[in-house]
Amino acid sequence: MAGWFEDIEVGEKDSFGRYEVTRDEVIDFASKYDAQPFHLSDEAAAQTHFGRLAASGWHTCSMMMAMTVAHMQEQPGVQEASFGGMGMDELRWPRPVYPGDVLRCETEVLEKTPSRSKPDRGIVRMRTSVFNQDDAPVMTMIAILMIRTRPTDPA
Amino acid sequence: MAGWFEDIEVGEKDSFGRYEVTRDEVIDFASKYDAQPFHLSDEAAAQTHFGRLAASGWHTCSMMMAMTVAHMQEQPGVQEASFGGMGMDELRWPRPVYPGDVLRCETEVLEKTPSRSKPDRGIVRMRTSVFNQDDAPVMTMIAILMIRTRPTDPA
Repeated sequence: MAGWFEDIEVGEKDSFGRYEVTRDEVIDFASKYDAQPFHLSDEAAAQTHFGRLAASGWHTCSMMMAMTVAHMQEQPGVQEASFGGMGMDELRWPRPVYPGDVLRCETEVLEKTPSRSKPDRGIVRMRTSVFNQDDAPVMTMIAILMIRTRPTDPA
Repeated sequence: MAGWFEDIEVGEKDSFGRYEVTRDEVIDFASKYDAQPFHLSDEAAAQTHFGRLAASGWHTCSMMMAMTVAHMQEQPGVQEASFGGMGMDELRWPRPVYPGDVLRCETEVLEKTPSRSKPDRGIVRMRTSVFNQDDAPVMTMIAILMIRTRPTDPA
């Protein structure tokens, strides 16, 4: 995605990231934040629709964010223009993420709206999808991002 | 929330959890998953609307989940009835989470829908809100949960 709010175009698409999901990281994340049996052991997961050890959905969100931030920081000016995320709509985990999966991201800018009250920023709605190595979606959502407008008053 | 799908009542409310947010954990989470400057240092955050070091929104989601799972596991039968989450709607972070904050959760069951295709489960939509020590909301969302129906064929 381009840097300042003015430079972002509706319809703009991007594809980036590569994240290898390891068993150790799945168990470490789940132990801290989502200690449900199917996120901790193959034995417990075998008795559920997961079938075998699967990552917490919040871990998948976090891995998506790691890929997103790495990608932002590769592009000059993009980090500088970010005020951070306001939230997410329609977040879904359509299939499990397993240790050994390799994840990647695709994004598409759906909409941009200048702030009514604050001329230094605008809101961008961006579809973000995470795919596994079989090109099957494991997470989809619409990110709601606050992005700076181009500074008009150079210091 | 009660255990099996049949036992859950629309309108049911709950309040639980206590999570002390530490500076070390905020930086550790952000270093791995959301390494934007305002999640890593007070100096960088001072130049943004955060004002000082603030937790990643994904970290807040994860802390919410840690409180939720601990609460599930205190109640007999609730973990057993959980098939996990399908996704989230209208996730928002209305204000920052800072080191030193103490978080807690409130939930309300909004809707329950039996599965059309699978009689062993149903979908529950549950508003989940996270508050800080000033009772100000730091995260709100609607969780979409898959819950088992009461087993009819005891093994």
